[in-house]
Formats: sequence, C-alpha cells, structure tokens
Amino acid sequence: AAAMLIVAGPCVIESESHALGVAAALAGIARRLGLRVIYKSSFDKANRTAATSPRGPGIDEGLAILAKVRRETGLDVLTDIHETAQAAPAAEVADVLQIPAFLARQTDLIQAAVSTGRTVNVKKGQFMAPEDMAHVVAKAQAVLPQDVPIGDRLWLCERGTSFGYRDLVVDMRGLAVMRQFGCPVIFDAGHSAQQPAAAGNASGGKRDLIPALARAAVAVGVDGLFIETHPDPANALSDAATAWPLDRLEALLESLLIVHAAAGTARAKMDC
Amino acid sequence: AAAMLIVAGPCVIESESHALGVAAALAGIARRLGLRVIYKSSFDKANRTAATSPRGPGIDEGLAILAKVRRETGLDVLTDIHETAQAAPAAEVADVLQIPAFLARQTDLIQAAVSTGRTVNVKKGQFMAPEDMAHVVAKAQAVLPQDVPIGDRLWLCERGTSFGYRDLVVDMRGLAVMRQFGCPVIFDAGHSAQQPAAAGNASGGKRDLIPALARAAVAVGVDGLFIETHPDPANALSDAATAWPLDRLEALLESLLIVHAAAGTARAKMDC
Amino acid sequence: AAAMLIVAGPCVIESESHALGVAAALAGIARRLGLRVIYKSSFDKANRTAATSPRGPGIDEGLAILAKVRRETGLDVLTDIHETAQAAPAAEVADVLQIPAFLARQTDLIQAAVSTGRTVNVKKGQFMAPEDMAHVVAKAQAVLPQDVPIGDRLWLCERGTSFGYRDLVVDMRGLAVMRQFGCPVIFDAGHSAQQPAAAGNASGGKRDLIPALARAAVAVGVDGLFIETHPDPANALSDAATAWPLDRLEALLESLLIVHAAAGTARAKMDC
Amino acid sequence: AAAMLIVAGPCVIESESHALGVAAALAGIARRLGLRVIYKSSFDKANRTAATSPRGPGIDEGLAILAKVRRETGLDVLTDIHETAQAAPAAEVADVLQIPAFLARQTDLIQAAVSTGRTVNVKKGQFMAPEDMAHVVAKAQAVLPQDVPIGDRLWLCERGTSFGYRDLVVDMRGLAVMRQFGCPVIFDAGHSAQQPAAAGNASGGKRDLIPALARAAVAVGVDGLFIETHPDPANALSDAATAWPLDRLEALLESLLIVHAAAGTARAKMDC
Repeated sequence: AAAMLIVAGPCVIESESHALGVAAALAGIARRLGLRVIYKSSFDKANRTAATSPRGPGIDEGLAILAKVRRETGLDVLTDIHETAQAAPAAEVADVLQIPAFLARQTDLIQAAVSTGRTVNVKKGQFMAPEDMAHVVAKAQAVLPQDVPIGDRLWLCERGTSFGYRDLVVDMRGLAVMRQFGCPVIFDAGHSAQQPAAAGNASGGKRDLIPALARAAVAVGVDGLFIETHPDPANALSDAATAWPLDRLEALLESLLIVHAAAGTARAKMDC
Repeated sequence: AAAMLIVAGPCVIESESHALGVAAALAGIARRLGLRVIYKSSFDKANRTAATSPRGPGIDEGLAILAKVRRETGLDVLTDIHETAQAAPAAEVADVLQIPAFLARQTDLIQAAVSTGRTVNVKKGQFMAPEDMAHVVAKAQAVLPQDVPIGDRLWLCERGTSFGYRDLVVDMRGLAVMRQFGCPVIFDAGHSAQQPAAAGNASGGKRDLIPALARAAVAVGVDGLFIETHPDPANALSDAATAWPLDRLEALLESLLIVHAAAGTARAKMDC
Repeated sequence: AAAMLIVAGPCVIESESHALGVAAALAGIARRLGLRVIYKSSFDKANRTAATSPRGPGIDEGLAILAKVRRETGLDVLTDIHETAQAAPAAEVADVLQIPAFLARQTDLIQAAVSTGRTVNVKKGQFMAPEDMAHVVAKAQAVLPQDVPIGDRLWLCERGTSFGYRDLVVDMRGLAVMRQFGCPVIFDAGHSAQQPAAAGNASGGKRDLIPALARAAVAVGVDGLFIETHPDPANALSDAATAWPLDRLEALLESLLIVHAAAGTARAKMDC
Repeated sequence: AAAMLIVAGPCVIESESHALGVAAALAGIARRLGLRVIYKSSFDKANRTAATSPRGPGIDEGLAILAKVRRETGLDVLTDIHETAQAAPAAEVADVLQIPAFLARQTDLIQAAVSTGRTVNVKKGQFMAPEDMAHVVAKAQAVLPQDVPIGDRLWLCERGTSFGYRDLVVDMRGLAVMRQFGCPVIFDAGHSAQQPAAAGNASGGKRDLIPALARAAVAVGVDGLFIETHPDPANALSDAATAWPLDRLEALLESLLIVHAAAGTARAKMDC
C-alpha cells in the first residue's frame, strides 16, 4: 500500500507560538514515522455554532503564521477558505486549500480554489451522498488544464453524514464509492466523531471513538488521514470535544499504520 | 390568525420578460386574494448540483431585472446572496435578503445581510436541528440595534432536513420549535418536496406532494409560505421537478387559506 | 370529508376500574362530538424498552376487561397481538386487532389477524418506507375472500420513522402515499411524538408537540386518529411521556375536527 | 487477538442436499483456516418483504436438515426463531438460537431463547441505538442463572441501522459501544450491505461493498463475523443481492484474518 498522508494540526490558529509548538511536534512525528504530515489550521472559523465563539486571527495574521510554520518546520500547510476572494491570498501560502463541508456545493468557491493551482481538499457535505461528490470532481475538472490528472489536484474528504439531529454517522461505503472518482480519499477522523451543536453553544462529540473510526476507515482503504490535534484538548479554542491529544498522536498513527499495511494486503487479495 | 405572507417566483431569473410576466401574474393573485406576495428569484444559482447547469444572469443584470419587477408591479422582491460582498448591492434593490440553507452556518454572511437593514430570510440548513436556529437568531441579534425587535428583521424558513441520501423529510415539530424564537416562520413547500441530486445531474422531487406538505405546515402554524412557481415547470431552468405551475398557484393558495383560517381557530382552542 | 375515526385509550390495561373509567369518559366524548371512538388498550406490552417495566394483566384477564368495557360502554375495542396464537382469542373480544410497528414485517402474524375476520390496524414499521406498506396490503389480501374490499378490513397506521437514534420523525408525505393503497389511513399522534428509549429505561417524547403533529396529519388528510390518553399521564404505566391528558382530549379533538373540515374543502379544491 | 468466530451459510434452507453441500464446503474452510465456523440457515423466513417470496421448509423439516448438517459435518448450527413456541424445539438441534433484528424488542422471545440454555445471537434492531442493546442484555440476564457469565450465552450482532428509506448504514461506533456490555459482538456483513425492499418485491443491496464493510468492522474489533453465503448467489432463494459467493468465501476470510490480527495489535497499542 502507498504511504498514508497525514493532515494534522489545531482546528484554529491560536497564536504564533502555539502554532509553531504544535508544528514542531508534528515535524518530529513525520520524521520518526517516515510520513508526509501537512500542517492544518484555520485562520477563521466562519461557521461556528455560536456567534460568541472565538474565530481565529483572521486571514492576514493567520496566513503570516502559517507561512512561518512552513518556513521553520518544512511542513506543508493546509488552510480552509470560505469566500472566493480568499482563494488567491491563501494560495500564496498554503500548499493545500480546503473547502469546508457546509460549502461543498458552492461552485465558485471550488473553482476559485482549484484555479489557484494548489491542491484542494473538499470535504463531503454532511448532506451529500458520496456518489454526488462526482459533481464536485466535474466542477474542479472544468477549470483544470486537460493534461493535469484530477487526482493530482483534488482530494475528497469524508467527515460524516447527518444522522437525525446533532449526530453524524460515517458511512464506510462512501469511502469505497469516492475512491472510484480518481482522487485521493482522506478520512477526517475527528469531525467524524463530532455531534454538531450537541454541547449547546458548541459542537460535541466522542473523542474516545476516534481510534475505532480511524481504524475502520483505514481498513476500508484511504489515502490519507485528517485529524485535529491539540496539546491541551480541553482548552482548545475550537472543536475541543474531538481534538486528539498531541501527546497521543504518534501512538495513534503507529496503530493506524499497522492496520493500513494489513488493509493493503487484504485489499490486494480481494482486489477491492 | 394573522394573514399569511407569500414568497413566490421562479427559482432563477430567466429573462426580464419572463420575470415581468410571472410577477404580473403574482400581482394579480395578491390583489385578488388580499395577500402580501413577495417576488422571489435568484440572480445566481451558486450551488447547482452540476457544473454545467444554468446559473442565471449574474448579480448586475439580475438586480436590474428585480428592480424593474419591483417598479412595474409594486411587489416587494426577495433574492438570495452567497458571499458577504453581495449583501450591500442586493440590499439596494431587494426588500428581503435570503441566506441559502447550505450557508445557514456562515456567520459573516448572516451578519452582513442583517447589517444592511433589510429583512433577512434564513433557510434552516438541511443538516441543522430546529433548536439550533437559535444560534442564527443570536448571530443576527448581535448586529441589530437593540430597539429593533428580531422578528421585524429575521425570518426562519424550513425547507426539509437530510433523511438518508438524496431525500429530505419535513419535521413538522421544527415549525413549532422555531416559532419560539420570536421570528416569523416560513415554510418552503417546494424545496421541502425535493430529493437532492436524485435526478442525476439535478435535484429531483415530487411536485404532487407539495399541496399535502403545505397543508400540513399551515395547519401546524406558519407565518408565511415560500413556493417557487413557473409558467412551464417542465422547462424551468432550475428546480424543475418541484416548481409549482403558475396557473395552479391561486387555487393552491386558496386551499391553504382555508386551512390557515381553521388552524388559527384550532390553535387558539389549544393555546399552541 | 367523511367523519374521522378515533382510536383512544390507555396504552396498557391498568385495572378493570381504570379501564371502565377511561372508557366511560371516551363514550361521553364520542356522544358529544358525534364521533366513532374505538377503545384501545394492550393486555401485554411485549416489547417494553426495559425488562423491569410493567407489562399488563396478560391475555386472559386483559381480554375479560376489554369485553366488559365493550359491554358496559358500547364502544368498540382494539387491542394488539404479538404472536399468531393470540389472534383467535383476541378476535373473540376485539373489533379491531392491531399489529405493532416492530412486527409489521411478520407475515404470519398479519395473516393470522386478517384471517379472523376482524378489521386489522397495522402500524407502519419505524424502519419501513410508506411505499412498502403495499407489501402488507398484499399479505393481507392473500388471505382475504376476494369479494371483501381490502379497505373494509385493513387500516394502515403511521407512527413515525426512525430518524437517527432515539428519535422519530413523521414524514407527512407517507400519509398521502399510503392513501393510494385503498385502505383507511390512521395517524398515531402520541407515538409519533415519541423518542424511543430516550428516557433511559423507557420511551421519552414531547407531549406538547402532539397537537401540532395531529393538526398536520389531519390537514394532509387521514381517516382516523389514534391517541393514547390517560387521566393522569405522569403516572401512566406505559408511554407516560406521550400520553394525552384525558381531560384535554375533547378540546384536542374539537380543534382537529375544525382542521379536518377545512382540509376536506381544501383537498376537494386541489383534488389531492 | 482471540480467534474470530464465523457464522456462515445460506440465508434459508433450500434443500437437504443443498444444505449438506454448503456445509461440507464450510467445514473445509474451517479446517484449513483453523476457525470455528457455525452453520447458519433459516427454516422459515417469517418476515419476507413480499407475501409471495419463498419462505423455506418450515420448522420440522428444517430442523431435521440442520440436525443432519450437524451430524455429518461436525459444524455447530445456528437458526433463527420468530415466536416463543419455536425456542424449545429449535434448541434441541441448534447450538445457537438467533433473534431477528425486527424482533429485538420482543422480551418474551429473547427470554424464551435464553431460557433454553443455548447461546443466543440477538441482532440489533435497525431502529435501535447501540446503547439500547443494554436493555436486551438485561432482559437476557433476568432469566439466566446468576453464575453464568452473560458473555457465555448472549451475542450482540450489528446488521445496520435505518438511514432514510430503503437504506441501511453501519455505524461503526456501535461496535465499540456494544463491546462494553460484556458480550461477544458479531458483525453481519451481508445484511449490513442490504437495502431493504430496494429491489421492489425483495431486499436489494450491494454485494461488492461487503469486503470493505467487513474490513472496517474487523478493524474496529469484533468477536465474530456473520455472512450469508451461497454457491450461486444470483439464484439464492432469499437475500440474493447480498449473498456472498461460496467459492470466494475462503479468500474473503483470509483477507479479514489479516486485518483482524493487525487490529489486535493496533488496539493493544491504544488500549481500545
């Protein structure tokens, strides 16, 4: 099996020193495990549950911090955008632009992101069938030079599907479905364990179920794992309920690499 | 019971003459039934299922057409916006700005719309619990002068909730829940009968079920009805499967007014 | 519109005197409102959430009490059965046999009930599409004499559909769908407001939402209303969270009759 | 990791020779892979989608065939029961009695099965939260001698959860949740890939997704795998869409054993 890509970092940029500290830890893990780790953090949480929740440093300061992370640690960086005008400035710094799940149907946003020439990670909307990510692929393809393989520029990311109110379920069938579209498939383990708005003014979720969900997705077969991590999850400024403790990340990834290797052998045996 | 507000029009602006024709018919219905009818049409469908679907005339031409509709028919107009920069120009023409369901969590967009001083109709996300529209209310309230009652400026609109893949269900409990937030509650009868992406490259749905769903919502108790209508639904440029035939709209509204009156009496009897 | 049929009574038979007391009250309501009221009560709750919950007097004592209710009040009675062997003895007393929602796929049970010659009320499984009640109709038809219209013997009853965990949603489209099968459609207002197992060791639910749900269903168009009622809901031995207070039942029914009449007129106008 | 238990066989008993043929093949697989394989087949499909579908040989002939399978192949056998009176006769032949998912709330049926002294496999209802299988455990425990550990007698089996209409989703979180109840957890891979009533008169489903779902469940951590298998799936008398081809079963199990071993190591590392 090809190596698994890791996207990790704090949900939101909390400060420059916080960002650099987490990034340094991630760079160490990347080195020790021989993995490509992409540093993820948002400059703005534009869709917080509540109006009063912290949103981050904003685009200018946020991108400056991400640029510094990139320079000082050598890690690639990923950040998400919410309006088309953010695509170009974000692309000057970020190696990967991300389209949030709620915005997975916004044609202009997807096309603005893809048009920058950066790789784009589109999260499947909680309200979308995996089959319908084919439309996202087509929207991206429409603005991509014909000689660029779609899989070089577009990633499809699973982060759970609406299941009644305030709960998400991961439909593992969807990973297999999305793989057929020719793009790397990424599993977002933390958000998949979320329970939207379940904590009243914020998202809830079950951190303890993250390893089980991640093992399941890796066993189905994914190209990468997305996981928000924090040195002190209880005090994370966003998505605290499902942030994975930074000091347990290496062990989690090691455990997943074991499953990933086995899944590769198992899939080869069954040709699926 | 207070009079029921009607929001109606073609999903997307198809041309100036088309818009004026539909608007003239709606103005006639408004006059005959003694109802406030707000003309609804989008200048841009920014979240079509497929990249190749028609999107509308764009903001400049679209707003010009809406301005003409307003001037010539005397109807108020409503249009939806997708990015914060559209709020100000749209507010120069539209009496009501609408936030699409997929964007119901975008804090800046809601606040930009409310800040224009126009009334804002926020569609409940297909992925949201009705209780969580309280957060939308709070986001709006945060940018509203304290002496303006929230119900004068914010409407909450039900348009169905994700139910498995490619299907929506209307949870009638949600109408009663949202009523508690002090804002008019609008029922979007057409989109509630939609089946997202179910027609392959486009949304499907069951037009025949619109009257039943609308009767149900009106019986629960709503302040307004939102319904997309078209003189030739089969050839509508957007949401054809659930556009209501313009020539049957007056009969539908008459039937709903009967239920509305009864519901008012019934609710008064039960105090709910 | 044809008169609406009412099925009402305590979820489970609590005692002979309790049953007779409720039945006398229901007979009074039937007389005053000019409605056919069928007395509903279970002799055994065979599928309680928890092993330790009260289950009722059992079939022998239960049927004896129902026979007395029938004799003393003149009301028809309805009770549910759980195994095929209960069909014949229950049919000696009950005018209507009921198949619980969890058992809506048990072919033998449906056919044993229909074969008794009694009318049978089948609740749609929480796990079934309304369209699939066509299979229940076919199973019933297979054991019915050819000259007996299916609608004379089989009722289809909506009681909500699984919506995530521990919640039910009523899909009002389903009432219109089931009406096409030629059988009376009944709306179970109390169970539709239930939240299964949500009260830990028992079903929870939201009693306050019953009138809104019932108005919605009546506005869509139903032939009957099913509602569990209790003189002291807080102390009901089963389904306490959604039992409707007996002393508020007449007002609720009056409010629904207003909507029912309006819906008849509205439906005639739209021919649906 | 402890060895994984396998429950396999044709959905319904088709004939004695068919049963013996499949069982001989399964016995070979059991021997070669060093696994405990339990032969599964139903004597009666009491809850077929349609009245006209084949149901099987009935209890007398069916149990006789299962007894012969047991005698001739040495495999343990499992069969499902639908009414309490079937528990005792079925227990004379079957090593494991199974409670179908639709009947997972029938207290008497569960207790009748457990009271026979046989091991009982209860499928989680498609309408139940995994947490609520705790009530099934309590119902079983209530009729079990105090010195018998519940895990020796009760298995909890996942087979998918209602997800909109005519579709099931496997919530992998549920496997981890049910593991806490002290009973072996079994994953039913075929029914989990089903789409109820989706084939019109019968269940549909996606056979090709079975390996992916099974890998996911095994990676989360299960004690056993349940899979219906048939030498000629296209002509299986029941659940044809999701029967796994008998001649590909050994390869599938081998692939899953690889994941099972890896999951054991991965789980030990994470202690979950």
